[in-house]
Amino acid sequence: MDARTALPASREACAALDAADPLSPLRERFELPEGILYLDGNSLGALPKATTGRLAEVLRLEWGRDLITSWNRAGWLELPLRVGDKIGRLVGARPGELLAADSTSVNLYKALGAALALAHGASPVRRVILSERGNFPTDLYIAEGLARERGCELRMVEPEALENEIAATGAHLAVLMLTQVNYRSGRVHDMASLGAAAHAVGALALWDLAHSAGALPVDLHAADADFAVGCGYKYLNGGPGSPAFLWAHPRQVARMARDDLWQPLAGWMGHAAPFEFAPDYRPAEGAPRFLCGTPAILGLAALECGVDTVLAAGDYGGMTALRDKSMTLGQLFIELVESRCAGHGLELASPRDAGMRGSQVSFARAEGGYAIVQALIARGVIGDFRAPDVLRFGFTPLYTRHVDVWDAVEQLRQVLESGEWRRAEFCRRQAVT
Amino acid sequence: MDARTALPASREACAALDAADPLSPLRERFELPEGILYLDGNSLGALPKATTGRLAEVLRLEWGRDLITSWNRAGWLELPLRVGDKIGRLVGARPGELLAADSTSVNLYKALGAALALAHGASPVRRVILSERGNFPTDLYIAEGLARERGCELRMVEPEALENEIAATGAHLAVLMLTQVNYRSGRVHDMASLGAAAHAVGALALWDLAHSAGALPVDLHAADADFAVGCGYKYLNGGPGSPAFLWAHPRQVARMARDDLWQPLAGWMGHAAPFEFAPDYRPAEGAPRFLCGTPAILGLAALECGVDTVLAAGDYGGMTALRDKSMTLGQLFIELVESRCAGHGLELASPRDAGMRGSQVSFARAEGGYAIVQALIARGVIGDFRAPDVLRFGFTPLYTRHVDVWDAVEQLRQVLESGEWRRAEFCRRQAVT
Repeated sequence: MDARTALPASREACAALDAADPLSPLRERFELPEGILYLDGNSLGALPKATTGRLAEVLRLEWGRDLITSWNRAGWLELPLRVGDKIGRLVGARPGELLAADSTSVNLYKALGAALALAHGASPVRRVILSERGNFPTDLYIAEGLARERGCELRMVEPEALENEIAATGAHLAVLMLTQVNYRSGRVHDMASLGAAAHAVGALALWDLAHSAGALPVDLHAADADFAVGCGYKYLNGGPGSPAFLWAHPRQVARMARDDLWQPLAGWMGHAAPFEFAPDYRPAEGAPRFLCGTPAILGLAALECGVDTVLAAGDYGGMTALRDKSMTLGQLFIELVESRCAGHGLELASPRDAGMRGSQVSFARAEGGYAIVQALIARGVIGDFRAPDVLRFGFTPLYTRHVDVWDAVEQLRQVLESGEWRRAEFCRRQAVT
Repeated sequence: MDARTALPASREACAALDAADPLSPLRERFELPEGILYLDGNSLGALPKATTGRLAEVLRLEWGRDLITSWNRAGWLELPLRVGDKIGRLVGARPGELLAADSTSVNLYKALGAALALAHGASPVRRVILSERGNFPTDLYIAEGLARERGCELRMVEPEALENEIAATGAHLAVLMLTQVNYRSGRVHDMASLGAAAHAVGALALWDLAHSAGALPVDLHAADADFAVGCGYKYLNGGPGSPAFLWAHPRQVARMARDDLWQPLAGWMGHAAPFEFAPDYRPAEGAPRFLCGTPAILGLAALECGVDTVLAAGDYGGMTALRDKSMTLGQLFIELVESRCAGHGLELASPRDAGMRGSQVSFARAEGGYAIVQALIARGVIGDFRAPDVLRFGFTPLYTRHVDVWDAVEQLRQVLESGEWRRAEFCRRQAVT
């Protein structure tokens, strides 16, 4: 269904869309709790049914029975590359280029550290890391830390100002570091055009695909990106705190090899021959130089199951079909909230154009956003709140139905009309909101 | 049993020791495969029985049913500190000082980065990181990488030369970085005396406890250490690639706060208020400033089960009893190999004095070490090989029996006497040896 065609005007029409949805069999791959409308797969993807059995197998057979021999026999050592190749199919990386390992923050440190070594190292006046002020904080923090260490500067501007700032910074720009889909608004950056602008002034482009991978089609090579990182526990359904991923364009890896540049976290798994136990570091050929410590096998096994749920969409139209459905779900949510919850102070905080928006929709509200989200959770509708004023709802097309959108808006309408969100129990803040 | 008393001279005597072993109930806490003598718990600890059920619970209930709400309800956000506190009890850290997170290599980067900021940052002539040439390679690689970045020098000497080198380096020494128990020989460094020597010249002492935590009593405060890291998947039985740990002495954390020094991996979980989503980094009070990315929940849950198996020894004499048994097992192994496998070219490559040795015994052999280990594995005796010439056997006192030692030596004797290790199938190298 094209996002611009008429949207369903009743719950029955939503149910009819679900009945005709070619992606609907994919929902069966998830353990979804009864009575819950889960609109937070953009924060933590749901549990794939395959994960429990696979983890039990890793525990009982690979670890419990085969013990240390599983590093070879069960292919544990290859998992960062094996899972990386699967993720690579979703983001336009070629086999062997992408690694699943560590956290997004740690991978960003490696990638940005390498990018600075290439750009700032070759030309010390290139000392600016340019980003968006509303980028996800850990990206900004990691960049701020690296900027302090390397004598560089982290410059943050509003998204609309990026193109001008790239041109104005010119030969002082080292790295353009952006998250393709903003975590708060869902706004999508054009990787190809911003990357080209960075390249035009001799800088590198580094992309965080945390809210992209598994949510919309990405083609790192077509966008001519230099580095990318991303998250395993959102649309890739890898589980809480799952290993993340890192990609580097082969041309940058080749430059690093030629100029003897290392990524900063020079751990043994990134060594050319880890089991020689040589005292001197010698980076591996290719992408594996970005590995660091021993791979987290339980996390990687779960991540593989999660990625498989997205790859399974390949039988039903793949990322294009997922994207189409996600845009429809988002448009439906916007239209229903604006019509059925009108007069309750909710302002769309995401791009209205589905093509400019990731797989989520955010509304801002001057007051009560946190409590409204808590009241929704009490009714079994799980979205989340992002300070200071954003109610955020994710629409993972693998398991979200059109009727779920309808029902979620109806619950939101009841929460707003009843005023129940003003109850004290919903206003008490918890650590994660 | 005191390691210096007479050792059992027959399999029956070994069985009698096992029958009288107060620690023997602990073996029941592990899934140990039938017919396998597992002498590699120093590389990968065995699977605790509790882990499978706990992981299933985390998957089905915490992730599958409660989804995103588990960050608060299930205490996921607290896991790095909760598991860290448990590990802390084994190494003499106080509550709130030790964190379970990331890999050992990544944690070493954070701790050494912070130590260099404190030492080299305050006094630029302090530019030497001193270590042992035979330290575990990833430690040396991480230090080599940091030394390149910071304009410092990694100096490696033989263990016997450390004290002289500390004194000779004097005001140029920034950080003494050592692994307490050598991964190859099992040789134990005296943390207190080497640390005092480093402090005497104004340097800091950083310890890797990878082969110590859960293997022998450690008291970080009594040893007056400054920083420590360690591994979760060896004697702590946390599973393959388990999260590792990091500890910093509160006085160093206080100095970092006073002088506005950051650890290099300034990710959001180390922020003073991660869920404010502020664009500027502000380190958390205390040890949590050493956190970086989102905690790996599956790995931490498994690690907690593993640590619990060691804490369970508290009912049977604790680390002291574990250490006594481990020394006896090691002495028994040495004595049996030297008597029953005499004339086969095996040379003890570990300290003969049990008090100077961790929970492993290594033998060197001029040729065939790799193939001998493979032939043993084919017979169900799992040790490992460390290039170029070391056969390594670990004796985890939680689940290794005296009869296991007897039986392992008998298998080794047969492998050597039969010459079966010369068969081609045992000589083919695999990635991990």
